[in-house]
Amino acid sequence: MQEVKKLWDEVRELSLGSNSTIERLESPPTPLQFLRDYVSQNKPCIIKNVSLHHQWPAFSLWPHPSYLSKTLSSSPPVSVHLSPNGRADSLVTLTHPRSGEISQCFASAHVERLPFDEALQLVSNSKNGDVVAYLQQQNDCFRDEYSVLGSDCDEHIAWATEALGCYPEAVNLWIGNQLSETSFHKDHYENLYTVVSGQKHFLLLPPTDVHRMYIRQYPAAHYSYSRVNDVERFTLELEEPVRYVPWCSVNPYPSPETRESEMAKFPLYFNGPKPFECTVNAGEILYLPSMWFHHVRQSPDDNGYTIALNYCKAKASFLCPYFKI
Amino acid sequence: MQEVKKLWDEVRELSLGSNSTIERLESPPTPLQFLRDYVSQNKPCIIKNVSLHHQWPAFSLWPHPSYLSKTLSSSPPVSVHLSPNGRADSLVTLTHPRSGEISQCFASAHVERLPFDEALQLVSNSKNGDVVAYLQQQNDCFRDEYSVLGSDCDEHIAWATEALGCYPEAVNLWIGNQLSETSFHKDHYENLYTVVSGQKHFLLLPPTDVHRMYIRQYPAAHYSYSRVNDVERFTLELEEPVRYVPWCSVNPYPSPETRESEMAKFPLYFNGPKPFECTVNAGEILYLPSMWFHHVRQSPDDNGYTIALNYCKAKASFLCPYFKI
Repeated sequence: MQEVKKLWDEVRELSLGSNSTIERLESPPTPLQFLRDYVSQNKPCIIKNVSLHHQWPAFSLWPHPSYLSKTLSSSPPVSVHLSPNGRADSLVTLTHPRSGEISQCFASAHVERLPFDEALQLVSNSKNGDVVAYLQQQNDCFRDEYSVLGSDCDEHIAWATEALGCYPEAVNLWIGNQLSETSFHKDHYENLYTVVSGQKHFLLLPPTDVHRMYIRQYPAAHYSYSRVNDVERFTLELEEPVRYVPWCSVNPYPSPETRESEMAKFPLYFNGPKPFECTVNAGEILYLPSMWFHHVRQSPDDNGYTIALNYCKAKASFLCPYFKI
Repeated sequence: MQEVKKLWDEVRELSLGSNSTIERLESPPTPLQFLRDYVSQNKPCIIKNVSLHHQWPAFSLWPHPSYLSKTLSSSPPVSVHLSPNGRADSLVTLTHPRSGEISQCFASAHVERLPFDEALQLVSNSKNGDVVAYLQQQNDCFRDEYSVLGSDCDEHIAWATEALGCYPEAVNLWIGNQLSETSFHKDHYENLYTVVSGQKHFLLLPPTDVHRMYIRQYPAAHYSYSRVNDVERFTLELEEPVRYVPWCSVNPYPSPETRESEMAKFPLYFNGPKPFECTVNAGEILYLPSMWFHHVRQSPDDNGYTIALNYCKAKASFLCPYFKI
């Protein structure tokens, strides 16, 4: 165990320097700098002044809900994720309908496709414990559902494309508010999270901290949502046949009532080095390397929304890393 | 086993394309191209026309032994590796002096420091079965023992330095002839082999072919060389206390007598896909990524020498690869 703890410290030191903060660049890096100093070293960074350098109309236009509503008024419906608490794709305690057994499952949101205006309204009306809406779909939704907004930003981030040698495989738009939260997980993608409006708050842990995440197999479940006579109702249903999803067990923000038991269950997380904490502001990009664990919360802009655009691509040659061992 | 064989094929396809030859570039790459298309992908390549682009005096001067002898005449002695057959750092069958047991050991050369002229003469006079001399020492010998030649070439290869983000950790000069051969092994370094005169012939296997190399632990032994009354004599002595060296068991060029037994002992090597074969000519650089297995032979120039300069550096952040798993 001492060995593993030493590894955690060494990785922090090596990958992020001794002060262990996420580096903020004043302006976009050159492709070579980006590839050499960040991508190749699997090191996150935040690029400031993106709105200044990239001059996307999105930064001035999208914070106005009226602009979005108008522009998207005749677009096909958009995907909305609905959950009772804004915590979709996260662990939920479930009482098994037949056995009465209490266990945890991995709950995904109920997904609906709605006209944009109606979907945005649902975000505004989101109430914890009732229904929380999050406009998102991680399947290249920006280029698919929001294509009319395409001219408001770049199709790709030029310095990243040149560094990685190819265009993004997916561009995803996220519109939500402070109620939506993304639990700790990792992606196999290189991510460039561009915050257009509001703020995103990340907790980051390097891939070598994997043991601190207590990744376990959880049965998959889905929220299903119904509205009958204006009464909204979620039911959580286990997938049949049962399918297991490996997911991080740690909730970094336990409620005061569960804090002590959570700390006892996950000592490596709570007693180990703190995760890197960073806030990405509107007009900034977070480069999140593949395989870093991340937990995301958000703060809304004056109109109540957090808007972000995520450019992502798989590693160019997934076998390379294996070569280097 | 089928799975592993599939992996070998996939790696070949992914890392080197379907025609599975080492790419030859007509001119030096930009730092970004080099990092993105080769280093990041752990993909070897050969850069042609180095003498044209880099214009080192070395390419025209060093092929003349008289120039080297004159320039190095008042330098301190240089390191020479002596072995009976040009196969130092390789496996040798040894009869244990006490037990009489026959086993294989990992034999390193006898290293002497001699005035350059005398050392070069030993290369010329090298005879297989008698004594084979190889001017080399992999400890940054060029900047140490051959510093007077420094102005004949660049201290570093600019595009590689910019791509990798730092200067070479070691620059090694190698002067030998066709009798010296380097057995299959891998380095933890990124290597840039620049051939100045003569030719180097490489057999290359990607790191994923590790199982085909039959890496085993061999007891370390050293040649010790003596010359008494003009009688040259090598003795091979096991290190005491015994120390084991992990080394590749495969000799890709077995003698006709041993060929059948070698093929039977190492079927994965001899029956699997052929290693990549390439010849690096004078004025060319081979980029050999870390962890690739390589076997090296050489052909001399008209004066009987093969001269090469190897720039190498450890991976910038050795933990990165681990991150990506």
